[in-house]
Amino acid sequence: MKVKVSRKAHFNAAHRLYRPDWSDDKNNTVFGKCNNPNFHGHNYELIVSVYGEIDQETGFVIDMKILKELIKSNIEDVLDHKNLNLEVAEFKNMNPTAENIAVVIWNKLRPHIDLSKDLEVVLYETSRNFVTYSG
Amino acid sequence: MKVKVSRKAHFNAAHRLYRPDWSDDKNNTVFGKCNNPNFHGHNYELIVSVYGEIDQETGFVIDMKILKELIKSNIEDVLDHKNLNLEVAEFKNMNPTAENIAVVIWNKLRPHIDLSKDLEVVLYETSRNFVTYSG
Amino acid sequence: MKVKVSRKAHFNAAHRLYRPDWSDDKNNTVFGKCNNPNFHGHNYELIVSVYGEIDQETGFVIDMKILKELIKSNIEDVLDHKNLNLEVAEFKNMNPTAENIAVVIWNKLRPHIDLSKDLEVVLYETSRNFVTYSG
Amino acid sequence: MKVKVSRKAHFNAAHRLYRPDWSDDKNNTVFGKCNNPNFHGHNYELIVSVYGEIDQETGFVIDMKILKELIKSNIEDVLDHKNLNLEVAEFKNMNPTAENIAVVIWNKLRPHIDLSKDLEVVLYETSRNFVTYSG
Amino acid sequence: MKVKVSRKAHFNAAHRLYRPDWSDDKNNTVFGKCNNPNFHGHNYELIVSVYGEIDQETGFVIDMKILKELIKSNIEDVLDHKNLNLEVAEFKNMNPTAENIAVVIWNKLRPHIDLSKDLEVVLYETSRNFVTYSG
Amino acid sequence: MKVKVSRKAHFNAAHRLYRPDWSDDKNNTVFGKCNNPNFHGHNYELIVSVYGEIDQETGFVIDMKILKELIKSNIEDVLDHKNLNLEVAEFKNMNPTAENIAVVIWNKLRPHIDLSKDLEVVLYETSRNFVTYSG
Repeated sequence: MKVKVSRKAHFNAAHRLYRPDWSDDKNNTVFGKCNNPNFHGHNYELIVSVYGEIDQETGFVIDMKILKELIKSNIEDVLDHKNLNLEVAEFKNMNPTAENIAVVIWNKLRPHIDLSKDLEVVLYETSRNFVTYSG
Repeated sequence: MKVKVSRKAHFNAAHRLYRPDWSDDKNNTVFGKCNNPNFHGHNYELIVSVYGEIDQETGFVIDMKILKELIKSNIEDVLDHKNLNLEVAEFKNMNPTAENIAVVIWNKLRPHIDLSKDLEVVLYETSRNFVTYSG
Repeated sequence: MKVKVSRKAHFNAAHRLYRPDWSDDKNNTVFGKCNNPNFHGHNYELIVSVYGEIDQETGFVIDMKILKELIKSNIEDVLDHKNLNLEVAEFKNMNPTAENIAVVIWNKLRPHIDLSKDLEVVLYETSRNFVTYSG
Repeated sequence: MKVKVSRKAHFNAAHRLYRPDWSDDKNNTVFGKCNNPNFHGHNYELIVSVYGEIDQETGFVIDMKILKELIKSNIEDVLDHKNLNLEVAEFKNMNPTAENIAVVIWNKLRPHIDLSKDLEVVLYETSRNFVTYSG
Repeated sequence: MKVKVSRKAHFNAAHRLYRPDWSDDKNNTVFGKCNNPNFHGHNYELIVSVYGEIDQETGFVIDMKILKELIKSNIEDVLDHKNLNLEVAEFKNMNPTAENIAVVIWNKLRPHIDLSKDLEVVLYETSRNFVTYSG
Repeated sequence: MKVKVSRKAHFNAAHRLYRPDWSDDKNNTVFGKCNNPNFHGHNYELIVSVYGEIDQETGFVIDMKILKELIKSNIEDVLDHKNLNLEVAEFKNMNPTAENIAVVIWNKLRPHIDLSKDLEVVLYETSRNFVTYSG
């Protein structure tokens, strides 16, 4: 019996969307207000899901306490209260769009989840905008 | 890397569930309070999702500003503050159930989304009842 | 020790905002889309609060089961799946704005709540618009 | 046209996670605070989804009123305000983890849903922890 | 300039409503399903608010980090994953209704908040039932 | 009959909490992660409430469309996607704590609301932290 187990988490961060190889005009046309050079920010809400067989001894697919701790040490400690463009290595040369942040989070968590299990990341940039990545 | 990008929207509308070819008794048995001939209404909450490759230049699957505008011009402007039975062509001869409204919304949006991308519509009729249609 | 006890409820209804003694132009200017003569509708969310002394024997200000039943019989049974303008006596000659609906609900509940207790009604017309009435 | 129809419900219950064949130390290590022998409890939020063809006559995949009633009689009446370990047969010899409760709920509902339709159960143990089972 | 600062927290617990000096019949009539002798439980959501002058140097009424820690050490560590009737001294001889739990929480926090400031506790027993106590 | 009318809005912004006249050590001790010199950010959710008499002609305390527009032009256009410290005059010499932002918002809106009416601002910095200011 395979079940998907999901855990919510959150972090706050500043970011800016732009490409240094584009003109200011093109950056403004494509990224609009998100191109503010002084940055803006979000409360990112995160749902991490692990899909796999229920362990018949514990009744767990993955212990929620362990999943919570994995998210804390690999994601929250790295992204919370940070400037994504200036302080997170992956975004030095990649736009911190919700799509790209979700992929980065998935890549950071994947090595810590047993390979027999699937991993999915849902990232809310605002309560109206969110993205889902499953590898 | 394929990601699903989701955007929330909303509209308010009146509707009635019934079939003119059925007796009053049968309409009441099947549709209950939803068959009120004077109509009732809902705050419909809508989540439109587009699934596809991340554009490596922008970091977007689809620009949220464009998706927001597509929803506004094709859905909100057509359905918001309307009587679905009397004022929306698709429901002249089709019951405006949540299922059918979701299909109508999907059909209205599909021509505006690149064919390489998948489209999904989630429609909340109330916070307790909702439907999902993916084509 | 005085405590405020609150209970959520909900009903769906159709309505229209307009004054028959005004011109169409004036109705449209003041009430905009809410003046649709074919009606539109909402999922109304309701919070009813009763403020008073804790009964030392039961530990209740008011039994939630009784409050739930009072809301059902006096409010939900009267307003749910109704056209407020056409089917609710109080709105025959009064606009069913959120403000007025909240006052009507308060007036319907007040006789059923002990006079030693205060009553408050919060009514959400949408998740973005709501009103509060305390008598 | 296949649509997924979803209905929310809820129940409150007490439970305890432990294995009688394990030592107290091992139970505490694996189950932590959830191993309290005096029990703790949750407000379980449930989303039951049925996926299938829209009936062209009614516009329904499944009548929400019928789905609501199926959840009430098969799940809420059985689990609400109960001690899952002591009062629900399935958990006499199985840990009432969120994963196992979701499977039990799915098994209780499956016989009542037409075999041409798929069934999915999402169970929130808290607003931060939830599981999904699709059979 | 006086501002009210609010912080959300949560704990899970089991409880039972009954009076040992009442007959079973009377307990069942008044407390219904909440009188289950095997207990049931809830995810309690808590909002603690402190009202007072903004400190002109920090811009804080009270440091949210300090408020969060006060709630953790005085409330969450005492009530989380507990059986309120059996393990919390205040409820040995008092029914753990939402009203009484809110008063107990308020009394536990009041000594830790500067007397120049007001304290308010909102406690959600479920998402539909909640109480407010301000001393 | 006096009613409180409330409208939700939102804006995203970057900010930093610190005092230039304090040492780095003191800033870190008091403001912790919020003192990141590269900024972090939030999705601020705002509830603006106006309390006053219902206009007997319209049934409105204040037209929600007008309140929505007042919030847009005076608050959202000024704060959305901004760096509060660098781009909003009021925070050049004042810490952009939630408390101070709520007071600034109240002061910006007060001149636009009739003096016979009361004004209240609730500002969510995160879904767990929020403040209320009523003048």
